[in-house]
Amino acid sequence: MRSLDVAQTNDGTTITRLTQDEITVPAGECRVRVIAAGICGTDLQILEGYAGFAGVPGHEFVGIVESAPDGDRHWIGTRVVGEINVGCGECDWCRAGTSNHCPTRSVLGIVNRAGAFATHLALPATNLHEVPDALDDAAAVLVEPTAAACEILTQVEIGRGSKVAIVGDGRMGLLVGQVLHATGAEVTLIGRHERKLRLGADFGLTPRSAAAPPPEKSFDVTVDVTGRAEGLQAALALVRPRGTVVMKSTVHGETAVTLWPAIVDEVTLVGSRCGPFDAALERIADQRVLTAPLVDGSFPLDEHQAAFTAARTSLKVLLRP
Amino acid sequence: MRSLDVAQTNDGTTITRLTQDEITVPAGECRVRVIAAGICGTDLQILEGYAGFAGVPGHEFVGIVESAPDGDRHWIGTRVVGEINVGCGECDWCRAGTSNHCPTRSVLGIVNRAGAFATHLALPATNLHEVPDALDDAAAVLVEPTAAACEILTQVEIGRGSKVAIVGDGRMGLLVGQVLHATGAEVTLIGRHERKLRLGADFGLTPRSAAAPPPEKSFDVTVDVTGRAEGLQAALALVRPRGTVVMKSTVHGETAVTLWPAIVDEVTLVGSRCGPFDAALERIADQRVLTAPLVDGSFPLDEHQAAFTAARTSLKVLLRP
Repeated sequence: MRSLDVAQTNDGTTITRLTQDEITVPAGECRVRVIAAGICGTDLQILEGYAGFAGVPGHEFVGIVESAPDGDRHWIGTRVVGEINVGCGECDWCRAGTSNHCPTRSVLGIVNRAGAFATHLALPATNLHEVPDALDDAAAVLVEPTAAACEILTQVEIGRGSKVAIVGDGRMGLLVGQVLHATGAEVTLIGRHERKLRLGADFGLTPRSAAAPPPEKSFDVTVDVTGRAEGLQAALALVRPRGTVVMKSTVHGETAVTLWPAIVDEVTLVGSRCGPFDAALERIADQRVLTAPLVDGSFPLDEHQAAFTAARTSLKVLLRP
Repeated sequence: MRSLDVAQTNDGTTITRLTQDEITVPAGECRVRVIAAGICGTDLQILEGYAGFAGVPGHEFVGIVESAPDGDRHWIGTRVVGEINVGCGECDWCRAGTSNHCPTRSVLGIVNRAGAFATHLALPATNLHEVPDALDDAAAVLVEPTAAACEILTQVEIGRGSKVAIVGDGRMGLLVGQVLHATGAEVTLIGRHERKLRLGADFGLTPRSAAAPPPEKSFDVTVDVTGRAEGLQAALALVRPRGTVVMKSTVHGETAVTLWPAIVDEVTLVGSRCGPFDAALERIADQRVLTAPLVDGSFPLDEHQAAFTAARTSLKVLLRP
């Protein structure tokens, strides 16, 4: 197996290098050959030291199942995407079907599990979803972040009549925007990039420059997808009293935030992470969510430095091991 | 009217002084003679510059109505407590009965309205609630903060089986503790003061020293009533995945907080402020909430400096103009 390895140095920075190794497939899991993997804001945070990660990052992928344990051998040869949390299977969270919150879970490319920036990865069959033929590989890579966008709908009531602002016009903002727009909500996309805002307008969102004075306290729901510490304060400024701020930016380190206005206004803040793959596959298949315009480039694993540089300013960038 | 006046200085500190003035009663409002007023954490924050306040602070009081406009004259002579938000009466918030969030509201002793640290104050009759004879003056002063504690029950589902931690063993913590304990919830009170924790135990709460290692991620709901910036981080550490943190501490300035674990754990944070007076009066009257053990002292207005000093370490301290 060839993979991209990240190590933390003593001074808190990270080093990345390509390594060649045998893949270890835990008992009861499938070996998946990675076709393509997506670079996400969390990966960029990992390179900056987020969560003290060491190992192979990458958690958005499409691949082909190469081997599977007895009972799951029908998966072999199937093109799949995969949920990234692997629970213990024993605790209350796992038994309630919410292994996403199992306290001893591993998370693909994030916690105690080698990720998708590699020729191969391992996951249990219960984490896999078959990709319909109609979805190309790039669309399939976007299932995981689209599922994260769909998670918002399981947490906050949004629909026709809801006034929503999305703070951040990056790949996640454009996915969240499409998912929320499809509910009938009126969605404003706030960002700094003319091209990305224009793309948002193509998706039916109302584009708005972050440089303009913000329409304070005027949205029912605001979503911070900036991936930056200052995004939360911007999302707080836009939400109306008793409104909801969805927090999607897992930012490394401390955030300085003025919270008393949110208390006076009785605002609710909701942390939001991984979401339902079925809902995402459905929305990409029926084109409520368009993925093709979001894919900006594709790099071989050898050129990961160029890929990461591109991912810092572009939309979705793929690595093809 | 004699009152305590707070002014902001250029260097961001405040000065307080006693002034003698005519009370101005806006058209359509009642004049109330203040019997006693309570010192709240927000008042102490105001003295540190919170919300840029200038004027007469104080928003917890009991008093006697001395004058009222035509149509409200039956209030004259009645012993009352008062809701502190006065809305415009015209906007969507006011028309929906939620003048607490009217964008142009005044707030007794906090925003554009002279407060209760004075011989007299003015409020519309619609803000007043008659105090039953069975409640003494000190108990009546605690109706406003008890209402703020009751607000939590309108925002978060708490009842038998709920595991709740209250971070902060001050007057607000002991009120919130009693209100939540009465729902049948299992309530732990976390603080640094032996006397206050013992009082919590008398109220049926499980006392726990803040110096002990915290039982991380083990409560369904945590409530920050520390009145300090670091309280939120402590409340976040205690809440389980998908649990709720109630934010009650309106702290002046920025709070530095590590938020990514709350996003990964999909925690909900809820800002919580003023609450229903009826619910508070009922709970104090039927002794679900005991107020007498919470009152630590009573000072004349002249001795406000001593009163504020006492309020920084004691439970509820009253000013008697």
